[in-house]
Amino acid sequence: MATLTTRAPGQEAPLADHAKLVPLLITLAVGLVIWFIPPPAGVEVAAWHLLAIFVATIVGIILKPLPMGAVAMIGIMATALTKTLTIGESLSGFNNTTIWLIVTAFFISRGFIKTGLGERIAYYFMSVLGKRTLGLAYGLIGTDLVLAPAIPSNTARGGGIVYPVLLSLCKAYGSNPDDGTANRMGAFLVRSVFQGLVVTSAMFLTAMAANPLAVELAAGQGINISWGQWAIAASVPGLLSLIAIPYILYRLNPPEIKTTPEAAEMAKEKLQKMGAVKVPEWIMLAAFVLLIGLWIGSEALSINATTTALVGLGLLLLTGVLTWGDILNEKGAWDTLVWFAALVMMADFLNKLGLIPWFSEEMGAAVGGFAWVPAFLVLALVYFYSHYFFASCTAHVSAMYAPFLIVSVAAGTPPLLAALVLAFFSNLFAGTTHYGTGPGPVFFGSGFVSMTDWWKHGLLISVLNIVIWLVVGGLWWKILGLW
Amino acid sequence: MATLTTRAPGQEAPLADHAKLVPLLITLAVGLVIWFIPPPAGVEVAAWHLLAIFVATIVGIILKPLPMGAVAMIGIMATALTKTLTIGESLSGFNNTTIWLIVTAFFISRGFIKTGLGERIAYYFMSVLGKRTLGLAYGLIGTDLVLAPAIPSNTARGGGIVYPVLLSLCKAYGSNPDDGTANRMGAFLVRSVFQGLVVTSAMFLTAMAANPLAVELAAGQGINISWGQWAIAASVPGLLSLIAIPYILYRLNPPEIKTTPEAAEMAKEKLQKMGAVKVPEWIMLAAFVLLIGLWIGSEALSINATTTALVGLGLLLLTGVLTWGDILNEKGAWDTLVWFAALVMMADFLNKLGLIPWFSEEMGAAVGGFAWVPAFLVLALVYFYSHYFFASCTAHVSAMYAPFLIVSVAAGTPPLLAALVLAFFSNLFAGTTHYGTGPGPVFFGSGFVSMTDWWKHGLLISVLNIVIWLVVGGLWWKILGLW
Repeated sequence: MATLTTRAPGQEAPLADHAKLVPLLITLAVGLVIWFIPPPAGVEVAAWHLLAIFVATIVGIILKPLPMGAVAMIGIMATALTKTLTIGESLSGFNNTTIWLIVTAFFISRGFIKTGLGERIAYYFMSVLGKRTLGLAYGLIGTDLVLAPAIPSNTARGGGIVYPVLLSLCKAYGSNPDDGTANRMGAFLVRSVFQGLVVTSAMFLTAMAANPLAVELAAGQGINISWGQWAIAASVPGLLSLIAIPYILYRLNPPEIKTTPEAAEMAKEKLQKMGAVKVPEWIMLAAFVLLIGLWIGSEALSINATTTALVGLGLLLLTGVLTWGDILNEKGAWDTLVWFAALVMMADFLNKLGLIPWFSEEMGAAVGGFAWVPAFLVLALVYFYSHYFFASCTAHVSAMYAPFLIVSVAAGTPPLLAALVLAFFSNLFAGTTHYGTGPGPVFFGSGFVSMTDWWKHGLLISVLNIVIWLVVGGLWWKILGLW
Repeated sequence: MATLTTRAPGQEAPLADHAKLVPLLITLAVGLVIWFIPPPAGVEVAAWHLLAIFVATIVGIILKPLPMGAVAMIGIMATALTKTLTIGESLSGFNNTTIWLIVTAFFISRGFIKTGLGERIAYYFMSVLGKRTLGLAYGLIGTDLVLAPAIPSNTARGGGIVYPVLLSLCKAYGSNPDDGTANRMGAFLVRSVFQGLVVTSAMFLTAMAANPLAVELAAGQGINISWGQWAIAASVPGLLSLIAIPYILYRLNPPEIKTTPEAAEMAKEKLQKMGAVKVPEWIMLAAFVLLIGLWIGSEALSINATTTALVGLGLLLLTGVLTWGDILNEKGAWDTLVWFAALVMMADFLNKLGLIPWFSEEMGAAVGGFAWVPAFLVLALVYFYSHYFFASCTAHVSAMYAPFLIVSVAAGTPPLLAALVLAFFSNLFAGTTHYGTGPGPVFFGSGFVSMTDWWKHGLLISVLNIVIWLVVGGLWWKILGLW
């Protein structure tokens, strides 16, 4: 007999997970309205219909009647069912090489957690930098930075590896969210590490899942950004931000506990307990070094970044550091595969069917008269601060990156400069709110920082980041000859 | 402190899952030897190198240094790393529409288990047919047949839905594997239902994961088989096999218990306990009927079979019968996506690079003089019984289907006839051993049937199936005008 606690088949709570009705209706309505508006002169009907499905998909990703992957899958279905595209075209996103770069990086990143190498790196940084609270913040951010090139889920990196270490530190120093001891240490560390995470995400093509989406969308405009180019361009402003942020937060709101000699000792003990670096960790480290080396030297060696990622994955599978079961279990990767394939496919065919070229031309005519510096500045700031309305970087990038890039370029902004700034901003804007990127709710959920405090500091750091990335970054990119 | 039972990070059992060394070395050796043999006149070097990687992948799938998916992923990596193909070409299998048909069917099939509809169908059949032991066998096979079109994992269908019901019947009638009561009921039911499963797998394009692989390989030879065509061609010989098998097994080795009035009662009670058909089951049923209808009418309505599958999936997601979490959790689907994409990509480029056309021409010259009927008969029988050497239908199809089809056609066999017979045999041959298809180990593992008995009956039923499918099937396909 089925009891109340065990569910017999056929006696499930029926359809608790169906699409939320209001968001679903809005999503469908937006799609239908656009579908039935007659396309403007110069736009094919097929392109217009695809635009309707594309916009509805984006609205669905933002309003979430269902999770992003399900919305994307239904978007793919819609392009095929309406015969806007053939089924082959509808599925064409699935063999995109950039998508497989990020999917493979997801697989590889599991190895840092599984082997314990990620944790070891965190304790290593703490043992060196951990004698002061400010040093602890730098140590945690350093861990994050080292892992960033090969962990594209900033939730996994921040929430899975760095956050547990942060929590154990707060516990050891008696800093709790609910008993008035938050400011001893926890509030400062949470603020610093979260804002650091936002910056490390901006520093590598493979450090955040939506970065390759921006690269793909830029490629659609004929602007190509390689893994190495991204990393070099982001290095100087990125490092500067990472150095400045904890220091400024420390000055503004110093933690009550400032010296932490025991933390360095604790880390050393932890490392001792972990013992010598194990064989799987060595292999993971070797694969990681190989990946970074080949990614940086990609052009010189003419090895595609995705091929490199597959080589790294193959190495981990052959040696048993990762099992095939680990791969099949890596839900974040499969999720990314689906939503990414849907968005790239639609963006690709909006280009091929002429809608995006048409839009670029119209924009060129409309904004051609402006001076590009103020024009781009306004565009970039609007792009940045509109993130208050988004609950995910991916949703924001998929909705706004391409049109803002097109308008920026139409206004005369050097294309690569525009593409890079908007791509970097696609990470940096996530520091503003507690819901704007995956790890936001994790860190905010710790309870160390109140919402007012979170938003106030978020706004402050956003200004700092914008200044650093536009001014210092702009100079650095000028030296690099990127514009 | 880490104890022996909890694994602290970095203290895992190191590399227990690395590639098995001897199979790995054989796989690599085969690939390297072919790679360095100079290609025969008329074959491009790139085609020859791809053949080396393809053969090594197949050998790896058979010898299993790692699970099939991992071998396939490394095969994809090898084509890109050696620059035999570009990375884009290496990943091109991932947008194949047939692959997404089967992947989507995997997702949909989860609904039968989750909603309890599969179990309900089984009890319904039992309540109608279950008054005699022979009727129970037909009832279980009937369940399997009804579910077959939309459950491409015969392991999920046989092992996940039918097998538990079979076991509960044996338990109720006191038939156990180890106390001399196996022949009361269990041995007969296991034999019948397993052999039935082999036949139902042959009856629909979407009833077994390797069926679409055969269709893709045939398409590479310009032979197109639609979902409806497959189902109609297989219907007559399939139903005849399903009727004959339990009856013959019953006559040869009758179960000791022959009448089972209580079973029908039990089933009715179970159904009563399940109550009225629930909303999710109705939706699942509606989606299922829609799928079958659209698949059969695919050509008339000009809706691609994959589009249909996506519509079914969309319906289940929107209504919450399936959640996005269910989809991400469906490891069999992601596994199939990877191995299928690797094999289809390689087969596709072996064609495009001219190796398969070259092979066809050579074969045409070599076997052109034979009469096709005896030639094809020999080829088909060799194809069938070579399954004693294979532990999976997929491995067998990927290794032998294309060359056997090419030689058959070269010998003058009507192409569609050859493609269908080999495709049907790709399922029927799995009845011979206890390891030849996924559900084999499940049913054999019940212990009701000894290995000698299993093989003896397997051989007998294989002869029965070959006669039915070649003679009755041949006539039926002649009437249909397929040859």
